[in-house]
Amino acid sequence: MNKVYEERRTKVYDWMAREGIALLVFEDCEQRRDASIRWLSGHPSDALLFLSVSRESLLIPWDINMASLMADANTVLPYTRFERSPLIAAAQAAKQLKILRGSRIEIPALTAYYQFLNFTEALGDYDVLCRQWGAQEAVEHFRAVKDEAEQNIYARAAHITNELIDLLTEQVREGRLKTESDVALFIEREGRKRGCEGTGFETLAAGPDRSFGIHAFPSYTAAAFGGAGLSILDFGLNFSGYTTDVTLTFARQPLSPGQEKMISLVEKAYHLALGMVKPGVETLEIAQAVDALFARSKKAMPHALGHGIGLEAHEAPALRNRSDNTWKLEPGMVITLEPGLYDTALGGCRLENDILLTEKGAEVLTSSSIVRL
Amino acid sequence: MNKVYEERRTKVYDWMAREGIALLVFEDCEQRRDASIRWLSGHPSDALLFLSVSRESLLIPWDINMASLMADANTVLPYTRFERSPLIAAAQAAKQLKILRGSRIEIPALTAYYQFLNFTEALGDYDVLCRQWGAQEAVEHFRAVKDEAEQNIYARAAHITNELIDLLTEQVREGRLKTESDVALFIEREGRKRGCEGTGFETLAAGPDRSFGIHAFPSYTAAAFGGAGLSILDFGLNFSGYTTDVTLTFARQPLSPGQEKMISLVEKAYHLALGMVKPGVETLEIAQAVDALFARSKKAMPHALGHGIGLEAHEAPALRNRSDNTWKLEPGMVITLEPGLYDTALGGCRLENDILLTEKGAEVLTSSSIVRL
Repeated sequence: MNKVYEERRTKVYDWMAREGIALLVFEDCEQRRDASIRWLSGHPSDALLFLSVSRESLLIPWDINMASLMADANTVLPYTRFERSPLIAAAQAAKQLKILRGSRIEIPALTAYYQFLNFTEALGDYDVLCRQWGAQEAVEHFRAVKDEAEQNIYARAAHITNELIDLLTEQVREGRLKTESDVALFIEREGRKRGCEGTGFETLAAGPDRSFGIHAFPSYTAAAFGGAGLSILDFGLNFSGYTTDVTLTFARQPLSPGQEKMISLVEKAYHLALGMVKPGVETLEIAQAVDALFARSKKAMPHALGHGIGLEAHEAPALRNRSDNTWKLEPGMVITLEPGLYDTALGGCRLENDILLTEKGAEVLTSSSIVRL
Repeated sequence: MNKVYEERRTKVYDWMAREGIALLVFEDCEQRRDASIRWLSGHPSDALLFLSVSRESLLIPWDINMASLMADANTVLPYTRFERSPLIAAAQAAKQLKILRGSRIEIPALTAYYQFLNFTEALGDYDVLCRQWGAQEAVEHFRAVKDEAEQNIYARAAHITNELIDLLTEQVREGRLKTESDVALFIEREGRKRGCEGTGFETLAAGPDRSFGIHAFPSYTAAAFGGAGLSILDFGLNFSGYTTDVTLTFARQPLSPGQEKMISLVEKAYHLALGMVKPGVETLEIAQAVDALFARSKKAMPHALGHGIGLEAHEAPALRNRSDNTWKLEPGMVITLEPGLYDTALGGCRLENDILLTEKGAEVLTSSSIVRL
């Protein structure tokens, strides 16, 4: 994998050269996760990563044993050597990487205001940048287009996800998985058995009484699942750090005309959107088309149409109907489409699959559907 | 519960009056969780909360249906009314709550630098504060001392946790729970059956081959658990939002002298620390005593001795051996003690229980131990 990480870092080094950034700082910690460190070095969590304009990488992990197993970087040093302080680590890294006085050091966009002031002081010899539209946005764009290694991971992640979709469908149909917990824990167990790190986010399993919520709270309970009406199951499997994200709706008779109408509209919306997915298309346009379809039936979807997936369950590109959405689809992007409708009396209905953008169009990776029981 | 939330808000209103803060802003969102909103209003996640010096509360939740079921505030308005923008919401809230021009508005300490600039612009008529040692620190101190309602919740949470500890111990001993997944999913299921919202954090179940890691990665797998050597199980149950946090070590013969030594030292450290826990004691002193005990045997603990628990798995007070730790124990605090030792060859050993500070001393709420199999 080392070549992969070096290639990714090269993209960032090139960007740094263009932008005149001498040192770039990444931080992943409990308060603020940044999966870009895993993307750039393979190290899964809790670390600082420094990239220099002279194309050197320095990783400072909390757990040096884990780094020795998983991380790729030119230099790896334990955090304890820097008193577990990001400020001391940054000042030392600037010296060790021979960053010239007066040059530009960019720290994470989400750095807290007080911590920005602390960095400015700790890096007094440098010009410290903390920008909303800087390195974070650039790396977000790089990460949105998956490279070959990532596409291979997604092929395997989707394969396992689809195996579980088949098993789940069969066992819910036959009444062997009876409760929300049954379904959610089946996924936890069977995913790990097949080599997944775990689930990509908390599984949402909501039986007919709770499916009206976009995000059921709690995410799953001991309540019944798959009975008469609409049950929603939203889950993702984390394979080598990358998560899938799919939603099935289980519809069991008797269903009211209102419930049938919801199902039919969500399916129409899904196929309308899928038909529009190809390189060059603005995602705003797709999201607007779906919202317009629902509006013609006097319905409204209370969330975005979809999103990119990768090391995070929600990442670039956005697929939402909001004026600040300027994303265009490109080959290599992996996105979800998840049209849904919710009604406190009728319950909820959502259908979500993962889609890889190809040169020619789109490849649907996963096999979720609205399942008639 | 409403009276409880109003009492908590009153503490904050009094603090605001003393500090001359006219409006206090809380934000809980995917990028930055803040459990203080739940503490102050009962609303579990994704919302803005505004408290005014005239002692009014305004909650702006993402999910208005959930708020109508769970939230207590003087006014509740849906986020969609403010274009889902915290800046627009804050500007409107200042108007609606009749905050006088020129007065002080405090935003969250962890607000990103660029967003602080945006708030400053959106609240141009006011003096916007974003302080490391301001409202967040004050609320952290309030939350560290649990009120009666919270202590009642902890009594129930601990009761369920102890039930599971007994069942787990029995079933691991008998070989009915064989793998890390068996143990972790048993907790997920049995906790929910007993009314828990779920687990308080990802369960760490590490069999003998993986227990050397402080935080096993992945957190649990299909690997064997409870075989010869040392297995670690670290879990918490979330009851009404509050999490317990316990760690058991399962030790199965044959054990090497090195492993026996680790067990004996961890047990000694635990009892040494527990003996020191009472109101008025500085937590730094306890952490130093434990580190000194390990040092006498030429061992070192690579993490803090413990921490407060509550709506978050890690909250105030700190129990660490670091010069900036100035915490003193007070009646009502709920803390964990979790001494542990780790060795890549021998595996790991950790013992963690939850402890309520009382007027007289300490009450151990949970029943973890180092279990001989």
